[in-house]
Amino acid sequence: MKLCRFTEGGTTRLGKVGDDRVIDLSALEVPGNSMRVLLDSWAERKTQAEEIFSPSFPLTDVRLEAPIDDPRKFLAIGMNYQKHADEAAAAGIPVPTSQLWFNKQVTCINGPFAPVDLPTVSDKLDYEAELAFVVGKRARHVSEADALGIVAGYLVCNDVSVRDWQARSPTFTLGKSFDTHGPIGPWITTADEIADPHALDMRLYVNGELRQASSTGDMIYSIPQQIAYLSTVMTLEPGDVIATGTPAGVGIASNRFLQVGDVMKVEIDGLGHIENTVVAEA
Amino acid sequence: MKLCRFTEGGTTRLGKVGDDRVIDLSALEVPGNSMRVLLDSWAERKTQAEEIFSPSFPLTDVRLEAPIDDPRKFLAIGMNYQKHADEAAAAGIPVPTSQLWFNKQVTCINGPFAPVDLPTVSDKLDYEAELAFVVGKRARHVSEADALGIVAGYLVCNDVSVRDWQARSPTFTLGKSFDTHGPIGPWITTADEIADPHALDMRLYVNGELRQASSTGDMIYSIPQQIAYLSTVMTLEPGDVIATGTPAGVGIASNRFLQVGDVMKVEIDGLGHIENTVVAEA
Repeated sequence: MKLCRFTEGGTTRLGKVGDDRVIDLSALEVPGNSMRVLLDSWAERKTQAEEIFSPSFPLTDVRLEAPIDDPRKFLAIGMNYQKHADEAAAAGIPVPTSQLWFNKQVTCINGPFAPVDLPTVSDKLDYEAELAFVVGKRARHVSEADALGIVAGYLVCNDVSVRDWQARSPTFTLGKSFDTHGPIGPWITTADEIADPHALDMRLYVNGELRQASSTGDMIYSIPQQIAYLSTVMTLEPGDVIATGTPAGVGIASNRFLQVGDVMKVEIDGLGHIENTVVAEA
Repeated sequence: MKLCRFTEGGTTRLGKVGDDRVIDLSALEVPGNSMRVLLDSWAERKTQAEEIFSPSFPLTDVRLEAPIDDPRKFLAIGMNYQKHADEAAAAGIPVPTSQLWFNKQVTCINGPFAPVDLPTVSDKLDYEAELAFVVGKRARHVSEADALGIVAGYLVCNDVSVRDWQARSPTFTLGKSFDTHGPIGPWITTADEIADPHALDMRLYVNGELRQASSTGDMIYSIPQQIAYLSTVMTLEPGDVIATGTPAGVGIASNRFLQVGDVMKVEIDGLGHIENTVVAEA
């Protein structure tokens, strides 16, 4: 199933996508139309969700929103593709010797086709194509063998980064967290539809020019390794969004930063695409 | 007002504290008994909250919980007291040249008198006494002059840290985020009761031995500077919890780490105290 949030007629609701239409899942009566709540109760609601076929709207008549806007955690791993780690090292960022995790603030989550701000305080705006996954089960101390069992689904993420603010602090925190800098979507493809999350081709284009192209199979730390490591420390919860790293080809590596009007498109086979235009911060 | 969350008779509710009693604020009918929701609607609910005087319970008959357990963000600033920055530098952590922010995961939030885990994967458990504030208004691009106007209130925080995991990664993320490692409380003292948040004495004891003693006036970056800097990047939201740094005296500086049975007590004048005992991770 492809689970989404969409706006139609002035209200935002949960839906599922199929055959170029969005089927309204309001009949599930999920409190607050919260994707986090839906995922937390997915075992009980899945069958009912499968049996809903109306009302529906043409995809072209709705606005797709970030498929989840209320996660408790939004984490991302840095330098998890070898060629990207090499280019980052060339730009002065030390290559980590273990999994390097940072947070994007949940307030930076943005729609799959919404504008992305060029901040007034920086001209070092950059993109990062990433596969993200969403947690479906509350879990701690998950073994690598059991890890994929807690994944609700997968989606496309652009880990938009402000490189000078990222470099100011070894924690990355602020350079990764500007408002609008977490576009995700276009929907959550449930895990049962993805045979192997490490065999997906992804591409990022800026104004139609291919800048990043890789397979998720090139990750240094696999998703099971990520889940095992994170859950050694913390409880993972339904709705948590975890971005799995970006491959080579980011702008900073060639000293080409984004400008107002630039269009970033990230696509991952089987998951769809997101497309965001850079605008001046209001 | 001193706003709290408490458990009595098996249910957890919002309350206010006065004269050694907790007054139940259930009459406010805050959805989900959420402190975040209460703070977001405080302007409308404050007068009603002031006029509630029953039911009430002796403080000794209730369990105080983390006064907020559902913030959207839990941020902390590193090395924000000069003497602590000096001792951290001596332990090999570079002194930042601008505000150094990191996240504690919201899942690590813990009650003011609840046990704190010694993880199975580390014996480098440490404490950090900190003043924290809670945001009361949604805000972006806040000037230093206006900054204190968005603070809902203040509370005591122990930024419990796992030093070897913290050192593994320059982002600090995992070493600051083990479950139970964010005790906060004992309640939120609303900002109108604190004349100057930079003139509060704080102390941390381990098993009764004074380990940290400082004034919040010794911060390098003041709370208005913190709010101005953070809000350059991100929207701050009601309920966000922000820890303002720890003074000198942490365990790693003297190579003394916490062991099972150790009792940490953090007190800040005017805000009360929290006290947490180290237990072996279950």
